[in-house]
Amino acid sequence: MQTLQRFALIGSGFIGQVHAANLASHPGVELALVCDIDHARAETVAQRFGAVAGSVQQALNSDAIDAVLIASATPTHADLLEQAVRAGKAVYCEKPIDLSLQRARDVVEKISPIKVPVTVGFNRRFDLSHQQLKAQFKQGVIGKAELIQMACRASELPPISYLHASGGQMRDQAIHFFDLLRWLTEDEVVTVGALGAALAMPEIREFDVDTSVLIMRMQQGALAQLDNTRRTAYGYDERISVMGSAGMLASESQSTRGATLYQGNGITQPGLYADWFSRVQTTYYSHLDAFVRHIKGEQVDGLPGLIDGLRAQAIAEAAQLSLVRGEFVAVEGI
Amino acid sequence: MQTLQRFALIGSGFIGQVHAANLASHPGVELALVCDIDHARAETVAQRFGAVAGSVQQALNSDAIDAVLIASATPTHADLLEQAVRAGKAVYCEKPIDLSLQRARDVVEKISPIKVPVTVGFNRRFDLSHQQLKAQFKQGVIGKAELIQMACRASELPPISYLHASGGQMRDQAIHFFDLLRWLTEDEVVTVGALGAALAMPEIREFDVDTSVLIMRMQQGALAQLDNTRRTAYGYDERISVMGSAGMLASESQSTRGATLYQGNGITQPGLYADWFSRVQTTYYSHLDAFVRHIKGEQVDGLPGLIDGLRAQAIAEAAQLSLVRGEFVAVEGI
Amino acid sequence: MQTLQRFALIGSGFIGQVHAANLASHPGVELALVCDIDHARAETVAQRFGAVAGSVQQALNSDAIDAVLIASATPTHADLLEQAVRAGKAVYCEKPIDLSLQRARDVVEKISPIKVPVTVGFNRRFDLSHQQLKAQFKQGVIGKAELIQMACRASELPPISYLHASGGQMRDQAIHFFDLLRWLTEDEVVTVGALGAALAMPEIREFDVDTSVLIMRMQQGALAQLDNTRRTAYGYDERISVMGSAGMLASESQSTRGATLYQGNGITQPGLYADWFSRVQTTYYSHLDAFVRHIKGEQVDGLPGLIDGLRAQAIAEAAQLSLVRGEFVAVEGI
Amino acid sequence: MQTLQRFALIGSGFIGQVHAANLASHPGVELALVCDIDHARAETVAQRFGAVAGSVQQALNSDAIDAVLIASATPTHADLLEQAVRAGKAVYCEKPIDLSLQRARDVVEKISPIKVPVTVGFNRRFDLSHQQLKAQFKQGVIGKAELIQMACRASELPPISYLHASGGQMRDQAIHFFDLLRWLTEDEVVTVGALGAALAMPEIREFDVDTSVLIMRMQQGALAQLDNTRRTAYGYDERISVMGSAGMLASESQSTRGATLYQGNGITQPGLYADWFSRVQTTYYSHLDAFVRHIKGEQVDGLPGLIDGLRAQAIAEAAQLSLVRGEFVAVEGI
Repeated sequence: MQTLQRFALIGSGFIGQVHAANLASHPGVELALVCDIDHARAETVAQRFGAVAGSVQQALNSDAIDAVLIASATPTHADLLEQAVRAGKAVYCEKPIDLSLQRARDVVEKISPIKVPVTVGFNRRFDLSHQQLKAQFKQGVIGKAELIQMACRASELPPISYLHASGGQMRDQAIHFFDLLRWLTEDEVVTVGALGAALAMPEIREFDVDTSVLIMRMQQGALAQLDNTRRTAYGYDERISVMGSAGMLASESQSTRGATLYQGNGITQPGLYADWFSRVQTTYYSHLDAFVRHIKGEQVDGLPGLIDGLRAQAIAEAAQLSLVRGEFVAVEGI
Repeated sequence: MQTLQRFALIGSGFIGQVHAANLASHPGVELALVCDIDHARAETVAQRFGAVAGSVQQALNSDAIDAVLIASATPTHADLLEQAVRAGKAVYCEKPIDLSLQRARDVVEKISPIKVPVTVGFNRRFDLSHQQLKAQFKQGVIGKAELIQMACRASELPPISYLHASGGQMRDQAIHFFDLLRWLTEDEVVTVGALGAALAMPEIREFDVDTSVLIMRMQQGALAQLDNTRRTAYGYDERISVMGSAGMLASESQSTRGATLYQGNGITQPGLYADWFSRVQTTYYSHLDAFVRHIKGEQVDGLPGLIDGLRAQAIAEAAQLSLVRGEFVAVEGI
Repeated sequence: MQTLQRFALIGSGFIGQVHAANLASHPGVELALVCDIDHARAETVAQRFGAVAGSVQQALNSDAIDAVLIASATPTHADLLEQAVRAGKAVYCEKPIDLSLQRARDVVEKISPIKVPVTVGFNRRFDLSHQQLKAQFKQGVIGKAELIQMACRASELPPISYLHASGGQMRDQAIHFFDLLRWLTEDEVVTVGALGAALAMPEIREFDVDTSVLIMRMQQGALAQLDNTRRTAYGYDERISVMGSAGMLASESQSTRGATLYQGNGITQPGLYADWFSRVQTTYYSHLDAFVRHIKGEQVDGLPGLIDGLRAQAIAEAAQLSLVRGEFVAVEGI
Repeated sequence: MQTLQRFALIGSGFIGQVHAANLASHPGVELALVCDIDHARAETVAQRFGAVAGSVQQALNSDAIDAVLIASATPTHADLLEQAVRAGKAVYCEKPIDLSLQRARDVVEKISPIKVPVTVGFNRRFDLSHQQLKAQFKQGVIGKAELIQMACRASELPPISYLHASGGQMRDQAIHFFDLLRWLTEDEVVTVGALGAALAMPEIREFDVDTSVLIMRMQQGALAQLDNTRRTAYGYDERISVMGSAGMLASESQSTRGATLYQGNGITQPGLYADWFSRVQTTYYSHLDAFVRHIKGEQVDGLPGLIDGLRAQAIAEAAQLSLVRGEFVAVEGI
């Protein structure tokens, strides 16, 4: 019989509860402890998933905990990550490590020598269609990458309070696609140019944009595009295409299941997923599963690590600078 | 807090285990008991899903059991259904009630006066796309039904032993679509004509067909088509379109997620589901969920009942007769 | 410089004018003469396309005419065909040869010994998608044919006067698909069963149907389906799929060009062609072109000939009988 | 009877011959004269289309010529345009007016006061799908434009000699999309950023790129993207989507007609048009037709004029500068 990985979950808000459900249902995992600064919430979540509530110190000090999943507020990530690694726990840390790239770098530098399994929450790598795109690309089906086109379009505006704390569209939303771009192409971004505007929420214009277009040059020569919006009027639209010297692979707009209506002079198919969560929901589980296999010593390709976290963030910083300064910006080395 | 419906599962083979997993994960259900003539298998399945193994008599006699799910071999269905209903249990009975329509009718006649919730396993009504087709049709989006086209194409040949016991393609495979046709149109089949052949498995020609085409006339005037095969070379292909006086609604071939390849002079998209089970898997849970809501007294539309079981079977009998005799056959009333 | 084939066109109504435009624009053809019992119409059409108007006798007797295209009223086809062949002209004859299969057979028997190029107007063989389906099927891409599904759905009801003279849905509309079925599979229909109803035009119920479903058994074992309607509410829907032992080839519903709208929870694509003519229009030219190449001695595959005309008609007769008698009908040999 | 517009065609190379065929077949046009510095070619083309060959001076001086279509080499456009306008002819001038924006501006300034009908060769506005996108956008179906995504991907590398004379990817290829962007949105580009590389043809790196990505800001706030390549390995891929506040309209990748193959775990559809010409061919005729209607005094929306030519060129200049300098560039006013 297999040994279960005993997890403590830190943070039991919306995403914390998604992780709680996945931890509880994963056959190789025991959700042992739930921690939250809102202890009542931790209690409720713990009870629902057959765990107990407790403090972060319990999680870090107990031998009965093998791994920690950090899903608390962003400003707490860096400290918790450092402490958990120092405590010898395997760590699944939601992105970003810290909104300050410098702070993130400092932590990573300190903990890198400590050899415990760590992954950073770039769960979209585990989208089934993106995975198949990567697999075929890696097999050489379309040759060398030349032109990458990406769209990252959320369907519903977040509350303005969320945006104030998010670090901006580059650091919060586009960052997933900076990671996907690096992962898919196994290449690095060297230059980025960005234009943005607050079209859907003019009231955020002083500190953020809700619509943006980016172009990037990759080290091995490929060129890439990305557009982002915080609000479509047609559902959640996430897509990537990689054009290579021998063809194009595309992970296209995904529609939900449903009936198609043929009527008059139109054919109406079911639309896209209603929101980002309904589209990416299953990737959290797949990411967790990959991490658990990694903990057990299995060879797992493409698990996002600390350096991946820093690199995506460095691109986001450059993109943010480009937005603000109106010029192309070189991506800093890590 | 809600009261859990305590289920006994009878039969723990392939489909029994699908039901076991669903019963175990449904928040309104407790999987209490697992019964099987292969007691060791019952033990294994019970243990995996946190239940206990026991006998059918325990299931029927215990006050700690509210409902019974019959997933044992077809020849046992009728007796178990009768006993369970007489014992006052709610019953989810896999189709068919019995391979003999007369035997099925006798049982239904005997138990109909007893008012307990019963459903028969026409789970495909719970396919998300079919559901949306039905919902839009019922709203009148396409007017009155005129022409229904259905394809029921399994991808892999079953073992010949299965076919010997199945009752034939009409009673085993096409029957799901006879039920879907009645449910979608809320109409009855009056005449059926069928042609069939053993093209993929010539060795079954003496007792069955593996490929068949059918046409049907409905009471309210619509005409319908169905084709069936036991083996495609392109995955599981289940589709239905209903053409009405004001448009057409289609639940089309469903492809799985994946990357699209543009290359040379072709565009290759992900193919269909590999087999029937990967396509219909989620419908078992949805059917169970609808049944549980029905048990609790909720108004649930379209839950397949005993009469639905008999009616679909009567169409299958007529289709079988048409195949054998080479003539159109009227569907008997129930 | 190439020699032009000098054509006389007999019949200058709607289809006659389609042929006139094609004859006038084909680089290997000279439209020399236009004949019509409505001589004024012949004059108008002749003038528009740079030809002269004249009588049928001129067409048949003049050495300056190499070929005749018969697009006059159906009851005149058989006589004109016979006379033109006896006069040594190449003949493109609109289908059917005659509404009476016996009359058509008699004519074919009489003229078959005379060796002039003749084609019968089954222009839909020249649909680009059907052509590619046939080409791939013939290459063996999907193995042996097992299950053919066809839909023949016109978008707009013809005038009732047209229906009175048409010979009925089997002889007028379905006949194109009987021909396509034979041509695609290179096989013959042996048995046909049909059900029909007058759903869109109840007033024709005494003499015709407007909606019908058919099943057929082919000599080499395949099974086929066809449905027909005279009126959809979603455009002209012509499609064919051939399932073989190694895959399926489909010539699917064709949408016109246009913009796709993503909005709310739906994706609306351009609908199908508005009517049969806009879909099949180009096939008349392609058929003519194939015939001209045949006249010049080129090897042309799949040009529909006299026997093809008779065979499609024999299936239509059997289908009509099946509709009326409510039984399966064997297709007569020719 | 209608008066024919008598055209002189100047230039009878590849595109000149396309125009010759359209002029010859348009019912409102007479192709009267064909001019070319290669007089023998002019003779051949004239003969093929029932015209006569002659000199440019004949074309400009003769009262028997109403309109001139300039399809000669780019360096001759500006002079011929000026002379033809001064001669009082209606002029259809292939783009660009001149590779030098300054030279183009000078000519336009000189001839603008002379009121004759003039159109510049941005024929892609007449793509049927783009036209429908524009029509629906103008009706307000998707609200205000926010994010435009465009791909302009040719399938086959042109000869290097062509590239040397072309003015570069911005002025030669992307310019069509600068025009489409202005026309679709009825807005102007204010800033452009571009990155490019010679990935398919490294040998052109000293003077041009073959792959490029661009981002643009529009005056009314929208953001736009464009990518260009000179060589795909999957056919000609031209697409545009306009996301607005209330939905998205897309003129998507267009596949040719053909059969769909379902086999194994893939569905292969007919690929895209083989090359740019097979996709855009019909737009030349539609553009000509719109111009002829304009000449006759009909109100024609969206006919590209001299100012459109200058504006698209100004964007191309800015894009070229951005490519070279590695910075965002403001688009000059005209």
